[in-house]
Amino acid sequence: MRLESLRYTERFGSVRINDLQKVLELDSGKKSQTPRKEEIAVHKIEDEVIKDIEGRMAIVIPIKDEKLKLFEGVISGIPHDCLIIVVSNSQRKRVDRFRMERDTLAQFCHFTQRRALIVHQKDSRLAQGLAQAGYSDMLDEKGMVRDGKSEGMIIGILLAMLHKKEYVAFIDSDNYIPGAVWEYVKIYAAGFSLARSPYAMVRVLWHYKPKISGEMYFKKWGRVSEVTNKYLNSLLSTKTGFETEIIKTANAGEHAMTMKLAEILPYASGFAIEPQELISIFEGFGGILPAANQAAAKQGIEIFQIETRNPHLHEERSGIHLRQMILPVLSVIYHSALCNSQIKQQISKGLIEQGALQPEGEVPHPHIIRPLKKADVQSFASFMKEHLQTYSMPEE
Amino acid sequence: MRLESLRYTERFGSVRINDLQKVLELDSGKKSQTPRKEEIAVHKIEDEVIKDIEGRMAIVIPIKDEKLKLFEGVISGIPHDCLIIVVSNSQRKRVDRFRMERDTLAQFCHFTQRRALIVHQKDSRLAQGLAQAGYSDMLDEKGMVRDGKSEGMIIGILLAMLHKKEYVAFIDSDNYIPGAVWEYVKIYAAGFSLARSPYAMVRVLWHYKPKISGEMYFKKWGRVSEVTNKYLNSLLSTKTGFETEIIKTANAGEHAMTMKLAEILPYASGFAIEPQELISIFEGFGGILPAANQAAAKQGIEIFQIETRNPHLHEERSGIHLRQMILPVLSVIYHSALCNSQIKQQISKGLIEQGALQPEGEVPHPHIIRPLKKADVQSFASFMKEHLQTYSMPEE
Repeated sequence: MRLESLRYTERFGSVRINDLQKVLELDSGKKSQTPRKEEIAVHKIEDEVIKDIEGRMAIVIPIKDEKLKLFEGVISGIPHDCLIIVVSNSQRKRVDRFRMERDTLAQFCHFTQRRALIVHQKDSRLAQGLAQAGYSDMLDEKGMVRDGKSEGMIIGILLAMLHKKEYVAFIDSDNYIPGAVWEYVKIYAAGFSLARSPYAMVRVLWHYKPKISGEMYFKKWGRVSEVTNKYLNSLLSTKTGFETEIIKTANAGEHAMTMKLAEILPYASGFAIEPQELISIFEGFGGILPAANQAAAKQGIEIFQIETRNPHLHEERSGIHLRQMILPVLSVIYHSALCNSQIKQQISKGLIEQGALQPEGEVPHPHIIRPLKKADVQSFASFMKEHLQTYSMPEE
Repeated sequence: MRLESLRYTERFGSVRINDLQKVLELDSGKKSQTPRKEEIAVHKIEDEVIKDIEGRMAIVIPIKDEKLKLFEGVISGIPHDCLIIVVSNSQRKRVDRFRMERDTLAQFCHFTQRRALIVHQKDSRLAQGLAQAGYSDMLDEKGMVRDGKSEGMIIGILLAMLHKKEYVAFIDSDNYIPGAVWEYVKIYAAGFSLARSPYAMVRVLWHYKPKISGEMYFKKWGRVSEVTNKYLNSLLSTKTGFETEIIKTANAGEHAMTMKLAEILPYASGFAIEPQELISIFEGFGGILPAANQAAAKQGIEIFQIETRNPHLHEERSGIHLRQMILPVLSVIYHSALCNSQIKQQISKGLIEQGALQPEGEVPHPHIIRPLKKADVQSFASFMKEHLQTYSMPEE
């Protein structure tokens, strides 16, 4: 893979926010033997470097009642050496969709001889393990794991930890293009290969997100992304005194972290998980509030933002509207300790204008899940040890 | 890459027509060290095998007034070690679109340090070279290269020959998905790696060709493909006495050949080039008519049909209608020496019913271009030698 080299980095305390880098070439061929002339402008990341990182990476796929054909396409695009972890919150009554997902994954793993895990979010042993680990943040009033994609992702991180993976990445299950899924994983690995800190994050920006209405219209920005990027950039600007547009991936569902970083971040529920990750980093390591972790503050947190070559084509969910997304996303910014009263006012005003908030209404507090490090992961691991095999593919 | 293994092959004289094989996994990871259990059902083609073939392959991209963003995406998906050959028939007056294509390619090659060729179909030196080589089949009454994608493809084959490439492959310039382009090339290389004969062809079947109308509908077969496959299968059935459905890629625009095969086939103009390739093979090596080439007949011709994981999403050309496509495509079947009167009748009847042919009308004769071997390629090469640099990237 060839990427544009890093031309610009903004610093916020011990956070290094790298400006957008584009993918220039999906497949950069054989290993270069000679020094390359273009080195100053272009990173060439050799296949063996990428494959080596893939072998240490888990890909978490949260899924909920998705079309099986799409799920099948997504897993076929994930490079072989990655560990696939599927966390499903699909229905099990009437039609057991979880069973179908499991069967699809089992067949795929059988023919491709690869390993994978699949677990249902409402699995009772999972809930017991989490309770035993003192991680009640993840549980609802019935003692089961809460609903939500965010919670599924955190379960994925935990399972990746139990499998000693050094990197954990997320890919949505509704992607139409297996080749785009493949590219996301290559981007994650390429980003990590450039990182100088063990606390690194790679966030994907889609080249285009086509709108399908009669004909294809290649949209660059979604409305929610535009708004979220704007407020996150304002948050930084008000603290540094310099206006910035550095954040371009506030809502990047496709993203990846080193495990060292993943285990120290607080997460938000629902649609807000992706912007909250950035807020957690800015709060914890921006130098304004006390450092969340000394070792990480010392080594620095590194954020890569990389633009794909493939467009992002995914299943349009008719039920989810702009208004439903914008409220949780902006509420994490609103309630950040870094957010000043001026931004708060702008956010409330905008939410009211869009009908996402009643006039005089309060912006709701997000549900924040404490970092995984606060849980007793050791205890979770020993509880899950004997059950782990039942989640594993290929079945024995 | 992992492919389904070859489960079934039909023979027609010295032609081996392999049944459809599906791609199971885009990226099969590191080299296997141990024998694989799944070997009986699955081919794993190692990256180094694929890359080795890519280094000996030219990818020909015919282009005509295509959106530059799409062209840019297509070239970014072609693995680095392949030689890109762009043959353009875009407009040069008013707006010089050829110049824009050249600039786009030059910029890409500059940053990725790769080689490419770009030539305009109406380049006068090209026409002179072809005239000198006695290859007037390619020229119109003004002595210029004829219009047509087919003619552009043949120029691409010739340029690949001059660059001593052993494989030549075709990719359309209107593809929305760079990751799909990448997959086509991997499929070509994977197919060739399985071939036992130096006379081999790989034809791609799209997993789906989505229809975009309000929402996505994943269509499996286009109308023209269905009809063309049907008649080509009839052609085989009437000769062997066994009904068959083996041909599933009659109109595969995405296909590749060994150079040894590419240089001995007659080609048809326009939309009919892809089915005509199969007809040329059946006529020349099916054992019914005299063999077209003794060496090839002895080694056998091998046809692979491989189904992608990616869907095929491309620019819909509003100007081209079913009727315009179906006539040239079916006329090559109609006028094949293998076509009996019963199939001829069915074809005429069908064409008249669809309004593609006047009642009592004659099915037009296709324009057939003699095999490249009949031209004096040596003379073409020596004429082009001093000009070749002007078509090459990076510019010096």
